Amino acid sequence: MDWVLFAIFLASCFAAGSTGALFEPGEWYRRLSKPSWTPPNWVFPVAWTTLYLCIAGAAARVAPLEGSHYAMAFFALQIALNTLWTPVFFGLKRMGAGMVVLVALWIAVAATMGTFWTLDWIAGMLFLPYLLWVTIAGALNYSVWRLNPEPQPN
Amino acid sequence: MDWVLFAIFLASCFAAGSTGALFEPGEWYRRLSKPSWTPPNWVFPVAWTTLYLCIAGAAARVAPLEGSHYAMAFFALQIALNTLWTPVFFGLKRMGAGMVVLVALWIAVAATMGTFWTLDWIAGMLFLPYLLWVTIAGALNYSVWRLNPEPQPN
Repeated sequence: MDWVLFAIFLASCFAAGSTGALFEPGEWYRRLSKPSWTPPNWVFPVAWTTLYLCIAGAAARVAPLEGSHYAMAFFALQIALNTLWTPVFFGLKRMGAGMVVLVALWIAVAATMGTFWTLDWIAGMLFLPYLLWVTIAGALNYSVWRLNPEPQPN
Repeated sequence: MDWVLFAIFLASCFAAGSTGALFEPGEWYRRLSKPSWTPPNWVFPVAWTTLYLCIAGAAARVAPLEGSHYAMAFFALQIALNTLWTPVFFGLKRMGAGMVVLVALWIAVAATMGTFWTLDWIAGMLFLPYLLWVTIAGALNYSVWRLNPEPQPN
């Protein structure tokens, strides 16, 4: 493992993850009707920290491999979409637009996992929890969006 | 040029650029004191569209080259930071935090340009306008931040 390379990928995850601290759920999210299976708030930063370590490790394994160009393009796409979701959902409070971003993110993560897997199965495995979590996040975004009337954008 | 690869990188730029439509400058930005050299509003989407086409093209040239792993890691970092800036500045209206993101973005863009240049000088050249624009954006963020008392975060 090239740790400098890992650190750069982890920095890209940190940029994405910083949105969780900058755009806090706050009163608006607390008051929303949520499905019974909504994870408690403390689960989210723990899950994301774990996932970011996994995907940065996966990227550091795959990047130096020959033929990793599509894998790297999909990685860039998913990290940009990941950075986008929190400001749209918690910043703008636009649950429908958040759903669009999440569907795009899910596709990008699946494509990243698929291309990683063909190059290095361990890297592919390291993306699996991320895809599962984005699936849960998508189900949660959808449920919350359906359970609550969409507020006007700020 | 692999056009599918180009399209994936351009999609990552589109995710970053969509923040410009989602988090509009609006009344708050209009009322801020701005330096005399502030570009008119219409320049920003034109500049960003051009820059995104250039950097997606550069990435599609560099990604398939041997030894492009650092270049790809820096590309992922800069596109995540690029996605982050607009929501922080125009969404949260946090000019100081926006400055921190812009400084990090500048460093990431410079590192991306440097690593691209060693692999393919044309790709490096395609990043130069982006670095210049981020420098201008940084100077503008700094000036606006200094000229206006920081409002409370939302």
